Amino acid sequence: MAKQFHVYDTTLRDGAQQEGMNLSVADKIQIASLLDRLGVGYIEGGWPGAIPKDTEFFARLAKEVTFKNATLAAFGATRRAEGQAVNDPQVRALLEAETPVVTLVAKSDIRHVERALKTTPAENLRMITDTVGFLVGEGRRVFLDAEHFFDGYRFDSAYTLSCVKAAAEAGAEVVVLCDTNGGMLPEAIAEIVSATGAGVKVDLGIHCHNDTGCAVANSLAAVAAGAMHVQGTINGYGERTGNADLTAIIPNLALKAGIAALDADQLADLTGVAHAISEVTNIAPFARQPYVGTSAFAHKAGLHASAIRVDPDLYQHIDPVEVGNDMRMLVSEMAGRASVELKGRELGFDLAGQNDILTRVTEKVKALEAVGYTFDAADASFELLLRSELAGGRPEYFRVESWRTISETTPNGQTGPDAPTASEATVKLWAGSNRLVATGEGNGPVNALDAALRLALDGVYPELAEIDLVDYKVRILDSARGTDAITRVMIESTNGRMVWRTVGVGANIIEASWEALTDAFTYGLLTARIEPHL
Amino acid sequence: MAKQFHVYDTTLRDGAQQEGMNLSVADKIQIASLLDRLGVGYIEGGWPGAIPKDTEFFARLAKEVTFKNATLAAFGATRRAEGQAVNDPQVRALLEAETPVVTLVAKSDIRHVERALKTTPAENLRMITDTVGFLVGEGRRVFLDAEHFFDGYRFDSAYTLSCVKAAAEAGAEVVVLCDTNGGMLPEAIAEIVSATGAGVKVDLGIHCHNDTGCAVANSLAAVAAGAMHVQGTINGYGERTGNADLTAIIPNLALKAGIAALDADQLADLTGVAHAISEVTNIAPFARQPYVGTSAFAHKAGLHASAIRVDPDLYQHIDPVEVGNDMRMLVSEMAGRASVELKGRELGFDLAGQNDILTRVTEKVKALEAVGYTFDAADASFELLLRSELAGGRPEYFRVESWRTISETTPNGQTGPDAPTASEATVKLWAGSNRLVATGEGNGPVNALDAALRLALDGVYPELAEIDLVDYKVRILDSARGTDAITRVMIESTNGRMVWRTVGVGANIIEASWEALTDAFTYGLLTARIEPHL
Repeated sequence: MAKQFHVYDTTLRDGAQQEGMNLSVADKIQIASLLDRLGVGYIEGGWPGAIPKDTEFFARLAKEVTFKNATLAAFGATRRAEGQAVNDPQVRALLEAETPVVTLVAKSDIRHVERALKTTPAENLRMITDTVGFLVGEGRRVFLDAEHFFDGYRFDSAYTLSCVKAAAEAGAEVVVLCDTNGGMLPEAIAEIVSATGAGVKVDLGIHCHNDTGCAVANSLAAVAAGAMHVQGTINGYGERTGNADLTAIIPNLALKAGIAALDADQLADLTGVAHAISEVTNIAPFARQPYVGTSAFAHKAGLHASAIRVDPDLYQHIDPVEVGNDMRMLVSEMAGRASVELKGRELGFDLAGQNDILTRVTEKVKALEAVGYTFDAADASFELLLRSELAGGRPEYFRVESWRTISETTPNGQTGPDAPTASEATVKLWAGSNRLVATGEGNGPVNALDAALRLALDGVYPELAEIDLVDYKVRILDSARGTDAITRVMIESTNGRMVWRTVGVGANIIEASWEALTDAFTYGLLTARIEPHL
Repeated sequence: MAKQFHVYDTTLRDGAQQEGMNLSVADKIQIASLLDRLGVGYIEGGWPGAIPKDTEFFARLAKEVTFKNATLAAFGATRRAEGQAVNDPQVRALLEAETPVVTLVAKSDIRHVERALKTTPAENLRMITDTVGFLVGEGRRVFLDAEHFFDGYRFDSAYTLSCVKAAAEAGAEVVVLCDTNGGMLPEAIAEIVSATGAGVKVDLGIHCHNDTGCAVANSLAAVAAGAMHVQGTINGYGERTGNADLTAIIPNLALKAGIAALDADQLADLTGVAHAISEVTNIAPFARQPYVGTSAFAHKAGLHASAIRVDPDLYQHIDPVEVGNDMRMLVSEMAGRASVELKGRELGFDLAGQNDILTRVTEKVKALEAVGYTFDAADASFELLLRSELAGGRPEYFRVESWRTISETTPNGQTGPDAPTASEATVKLWAGSNRLVATGEGNGPVNALDAALRLALDGVYPELAEIDLVDYKVRILDSARGTDAITRVMIESTNGRMVWRTVGVGANIIEASWEALTDAFTYGLLTARIEPHL
């Protein structure tokens, strides 16, 4: 039995319901790894069987990632009415995901049973009993999400309690009380969790949505009332107003209620992980987000500036370092020399005591971050930057004389997804004393530049053929400037043995892409131990 | 004595401390009028004397605006240590603002008295007594903000209570307990407000910041514990993580706690006022904001669309109409005819029973979603698509013959954020029988296309000058195909009165942007009721 208090993350399942969120399988794997690094107890990966992408996610995750901290959970529903769990294709898909934990959602509001599920209250209880029992019999640990629990409790508490009991008796480890519509306030949550806990012999969890702006407080109230399992999402992602934000719940519990779900080092990774995940989801972080927001510990200078410097604890509710944030505004995992040193060590460079280099690299990183770069996820660009300050410098495989791209409609001028358009790019480079000129074509201007670059360098560095670009992300910074905004491009590349990420920034998306592209090729040649052609 | 429960808005004073917020006097007057229209009890206008713009604000407001509902308050500090209220220039400026209410901030945490104010605890009490007494003697109603009250209470409750008593005895109407650093959780707030209320004979208020993500819940807890004055800001604006968000507190109190600070008509204006204020502050609204956010009542349609249509109250914690918001059905994967019909109704098209049209639109949406479109957030593109299937069709303001963009390095070939690159675009269009050709320049290819399009159409549709592109987002779909991936572009546009969103998809980012751009202009002309030029 999972007696210990734990955090259950549903970013990949319920968080992914957020308007505008669209995660690929690769995105989900990257987020799962970040969540595991943070140290959450359980990661709900998705709904295998119901969502084809999620079925693929579980299959690929098992091959590609071994969790250090987290236990993986698959999410699904109780069996169909009047059916059998053993025959239910959706239940079978849950088994086939081969996760240690299965989390089942069940109706617990009698009105939803009758009006949405269109079955009888008794059959709904049998659906819970059978499905939990079947999965437990197959060796799974089962958690049960009691959907619409609080609304249901207020309408007919006896029925909601009978759902909890059915799950407990069938072997569910935790029954999670869900405020599915998000309309509750903390006092009522505390009362109902206490009353429910008094009547059942199973561990209780809490799952809140933020429709009243109280999801964090509601989750804390439930924990104070006895819940030992808290569900939520990183950055509060989720449908409507979002799910309970774990990036606020975790530090509130750890630093204010003495309930530490993570150890201190993991907690100090909170801001970094929250920001890295927002890079993957491509949803701009909310500056005012508690604990991890870029403004969370930003003070307006002025009258109190010196007082704050002398007595920061008088003006801050916690030391931001505890959650990996910074009192000064610059959000960056690398804002200090200590973190540059740490990052360098991670990449194999011992910079301890090399204060000049540390200072120069730190200042360069800060200056680049100020114009929109981020190195949180772009290790390869960071290593190239670091090398540019070390003896030997950044290897120069080619020098760029110029590039040009042309994109245009083909004569008939049709637009839309099937419109005939063409892009070409010309690059002029030097490798040592060889001048290399090539023109490439592509689906779009960046694809054409990629082709032209490969054509130009092919004779000099045939090893480039090994390098594939496997991910290309674009982020508009300061998007309120419309088409005149700054663009950040992240490229992920592989040679089949390792993966690296590079970054480029510019007012022109093509220029930003070009920068990330040339970094990607340079790093690829560097790791293949190719000597620059001089 | 202000015995009645009331809302005290500090958007113009404490809210304006938010990073990036920069309000002109005209902005502040506009916001004050909106707040009065909403019906808040008190509006804190600023700090006359300390901030010159605020001095001007009070002078202009008195001439230009007569409040229908609100009472105006000026904010300031207690007199200087070892001085006299009557001579204190800052206190005099408060008098000269000629507001019915003056809200004074005073230190109540003994550590701040000694370490920041650098005076004695006894002198701080005299500063409170003198300043409150002087202003009351001058005929002002005085509220006192007890700064750092909760932190101070935990350190030395006797001293904080002596501050409250000093204010009360000198004639303050309300003493507002401030969680200045924002670190409190609801349970402790409730305890301390109760304990304080038991020991003093003055009405208490509450002022929270959102550093723990609990400002709304903390405010509610204080009200439940006896506070009858709640301070906050619209949209939760404020320093760091912001102040308590009145747009959540007001409806929580009215709809869930039976404490109505506004009447029903005013409450139904909440979303409108919140959005109008975000237009004035020029800070993009947060889609997930409780009650008033654009996503707050958005449901992914799909399987449950028909259940939601029959029983919306089973899926919503309140009727969004009560706060002036709307239920939105997101037209998304698994879109069915039911959700297209619902969406159509939302946009003003009654498609009930028109099965042919519903089928055609649904199939078109499905086909477009399969290649990467999403209409979740692109209502304007959806409406244009819908119109293309209705009698009358999609209005054709211009036909595209061709477009071309060129982006290139300028000769020296430098790259990076400061690299000199240039983009130009040429468009060839027809408006009726006029052939329009124009070339525009820009920071990047899309910015250049935007410029060229405006240049070409300027003579025919001068109304385009009203349309601004306020947001531009790029999403790489299937990003694992590297630079060859499909791109989705979302553009948000405004004419100053309304906002609309359009979408474009293509393998070429420029082509996708062009599609979203031409949809944006078409929709803008359509809503301005411009007739196509034939």
